[in-house]
Amino acid sequence: MIKLKTIFSRNYCTSSIKEVLTLNTIGQKVKTKGWVKNVRSMKEHLFADINDGSTGENLQIVCSKSDKERVGFGSSIEIKGVTGLTPKGKLEVITEELKLIGKCPLDGKYPYVARQTFAPEYIRENLHFRSRVSSFNAMIRCRHHLTNIINNYLYNNGFIQVNTPIITGNDCEGAGEIFMVKPESEDLLKSMKRNENEKSEDIFFDHKVFLTVSGQLHLESMAHGLSKVYTFGPTFRAENSKSPIHLSEFYMLELEQSFVTTLDDVIDTLTKMFKTVTNEFLEKSSNEVVIINKSNKEFKLESHFDWVEKEFPVMTFQEAFSLIDKNKDKFTKPPNILAGISKEQEHFLADYCQGPCFVIDWPKDQKSFYMRQKKENPEIVEAFDFIVPRIGEVAGGSVREDEFETLRAKIPNEEALNWYLDLRKYGGVTTGGFGLGFERYLQFLTNITSIKDVIPFPRWPHNCSM
Amino acid sequence: MIKLKTIFSRNYCTSSIKEVLTLNTIGQKVKTKGWVKNVRSMKEHLFADINDGSTGENLQIVCSKSDKERVGFGSSIEIKGVTGLTPKGKLEVITEELKLIGKCPLDGKYPYVARQTFAPEYIRENLHFRSRVSSFNAMIRCRHHLTNIINNYLYNNGFIQVNTPIITGNDCEGAGEIFMVKPESEDLLKSMKRNENEKSEDIFFDHKVFLTVSGQLHLESMAHGLSKVYTFGPTFRAENSKSPIHLSEFYMLELEQSFVTTLDDVIDTLTKMFKTVTNEFLEKSSNEVVIINKSNKEFKLESHFDWVEKEFPVMTFQEAFSLIDKNKDKFTKPPNILAGISKEQEHFLADYCQGPCFVIDWPKDQKSFYMRQKKENPEIVEAFDFIVPRIGEVAGGSVREDEFETLRAKIPNEEALNWYLDLRKYGGVTTGGFGLGFERYLQFLTNITSIKDVIPFPRWPHNCSM
Repeated sequence: MIKLKTIFSRNYCTSSIKEVLTLNTIGQKVKTKGWVKNVRSMKEHLFADINDGSTGENLQIVCSKSDKERVGFGSSIEIKGVTGLTPKGKLEVITEELKLIGKCPLDGKYPYVARQTFAPEYIRENLHFRSRVSSFNAMIRCRHHLTNIINNYLYNNGFIQVNTPIITGNDCEGAGEIFMVKPESEDLLKSMKRNENEKSEDIFFDHKVFLTVSGQLHLESMAHGLSKVYTFGPTFRAENSKSPIHLSEFYMLELEQSFVTTLDDVIDTLTKMFKTVTNEFLEKSSNEVVIINKSNKEFKLESHFDWVEKEFPVMTFQEAFSLIDKNKDKFTKPPNILAGISKEQEHFLADYCQGPCFVIDWPKDQKSFYMRQKKENPEIVEAFDFIVPRIGEVAGGSVREDEFETLRAKIPNEEALNWYLDLRKYGGVTTGGFGLGFERYLQFLTNITSIKDVIPFPRWPHNCSM
Repeated sequence: MIKLKTIFSRNYCTSSIKEVLTLNTIGQKVKTKGWVKNVRSMKEHLFADINDGSTGENLQIVCSKSDKERVGFGSSIEIKGVTGLTPKGKLEVITEELKLIGKCPLDGKYPYVARQTFAPEYIRENLHFRSRVSSFNAMIRCRHHLTNIINNYLYNNGFIQVNTPIITGNDCEGAGEIFMVKPESEDLLKSMKRNENEKSEDIFFDHKVFLTVSGQLHLESMAHGLSKVYTFGPTFRAENSKSPIHLSEFYMLELEQSFVTTLDDVIDTLTKMFKTVTNEFLEKSSNEVVIINKSNKEFKLESHFDWVEKEFPVMTFQEAFSLIDKNKDKFTKPPNILAGISKEQEHFLADYCQGPCFVIDWPKDQKSFYMRQKKENPEIVEAFDFIVPRIGEVAGGSVREDEFETLRAKIPNEEALNWYLDLRKYGGVTTGGFGLGFERYLQFLTNITSIKDVIPFPRWPHNCSM
């Protein structure tokens, strides 16, 4: 129970609900605003909970019975009043003036009613009203904190943020799951056309362009002069998937550092970042994680994060596969080493390790052309998948091929990627890095099941509302 | 001149060049890496300047004549050595071991040679080698610092970052200068097609989608529950412009706050942010700004930033236009009040004010549908342009129309924007905000002429390399 001292103030200070709730004086005049979340009519007074999104905790206000018309569920109001204490010792505000800003007619079109929780799928049907839902707002604040913590961690560790392009002529891994981009206006295209045979998608930029699937190759060019760089932004995949860990538009943190020698350097960088960032996230956002999991009785904050202090096991692909093969009865499909590690096998590995783990030293044919072949066995590349419980792979990384001729022999399109070969020819260095799926990391931290609920405006096949 | 004390160390500590240069001991064993920027052969020794992108200052290393083959311009090297002092009292490293990592053959294909500065247009021809240019790297560090300062300023002032979508069905202002997006793969489109007549651009998301031109409307929906929000990310314009302040892909900071009452609230928020962020930028990046302007003899750091402490004048559109009209001889085109304020007129206004200024209260027909009409004169909207010297408009903002029926009468596509009208109907509040062109702000701070040189991978008509 908090203790408050009484003060006598003259002016109303305008505060957010978060600020009001941290006051430790009663009799303090405050002016605040928010949306009505709940109203309870008692003998003499009306009690309402209001919230403005600045915090997960609602502020209780005490108002007069005559305010009834003006404090309806969902309405926006402004109040002036003085701070007081509830019988349970929490801060409340006894209103002196109450102004209705915008009423909320419960005409059947507004999707929510008081004192009821709704399924995420239902909340997702009205993207424009999601910010009225306390669990969604808690997620947004988690996302906000996590973004800020990551950026500051990298800033303080000498990594320079370099915005890699969204529109690019390079499709990176050539997987074909890309979106094509061209101007919408036929008039513009007509005015820019230089010959009759020019295709509309070649006109604006002189060649076909796509939405980025990875900024890694661009980052490598920047690392060849700035040493430690990263990019953190939207990435796109035109894939017909409705899985709970795939989106057409998602955020990826990609990091690249020069002068690395072994894969351990890259694993170290990721591990340190992952642990430090998670610990800071816990400090700033554990209240929010509790709000998100309020209706999940099995959720316990401590055990949810007990992996943070553990060492993350590192196993080779061969070791991982032996383990999978020994447990083949546990899977719906029989393990096939040529097909790599499936999603259910990833889950098994993380459960087996009771936390995040690395799978390293992959068969060359299962990974990208730019990964470095091992000197002692060129069939193996110095790459890792980073796997966590419930989600599976959240990050992948590698040392990049630094041998000009080896790279040249593997490169999918030498003409288009001539610049990438150039990096090895003129003052080349060995670089290494990883890409981390930001939404998957956030799912892992918050225990949110669907990736569609950890991004404000999810896009997936047949879904692009607003 | 710095004073150094002598120490006797045993182990080589691996450091970035920035870290080496902040050492204050001589005799300190260090190991560091970088690219050779310059080599001078003296009687007994070779002197080389090396840099790794962590700082704008080069590190001088002293090596033996026998290292000549290994310290060529542009090469990447690793050195071990001990710290010493140059005759001018600067820190240097006397190398004990020097390892060539990647040589840089000066075969005519590498675009740079030692001791020469190159024009930005020339440097831009090889985007993948821009990170070898000290002025470009100084710009990247400026961009990095400015991004970090803005995000932390907003974090500390209670604004929540909300990533608005890149792919959207909404073209916001309906200006038509938009890019259309669809999957590249014909096979994917075929497999998802539901009827023969379906257009390829409607298949993946059920309707046409575009690259965002503004996240403002999305932000407004979030502000109606989270109160203070912002988005800071890539934005797109399919415009056939080669001007020094336009790009096809650029970054915009958009901010929205609820419970505003007048346009002054929005102007205050922008002014405070602009001044505080600029002051912090100056603290962290003035060295970089000096490097960028090294070859510009007229540039003086103090006078470049003397506007920061001034009050930013606020004038109405009418007042601004009278001023322009009185000075009509100064313009290449005669002023026309119906055409608004031209670029050269913006420059005139900022010069007249000797710094940034606001133009408020615009004719309704010259601004967007969502801006609030003044109660006392509905022909005028509560909007501003924020204009700075050399660049012109860097930001625009307004109070948003909060009257349901007034907005409905003006909305360009009521069916598609029904959700936007909903915001006024259910717990509506007055919101206001602005959009700030990040690259233009960076141009203003760094004195860089072309917007193509303040972004790592510029995209403009006929230009999308890498």
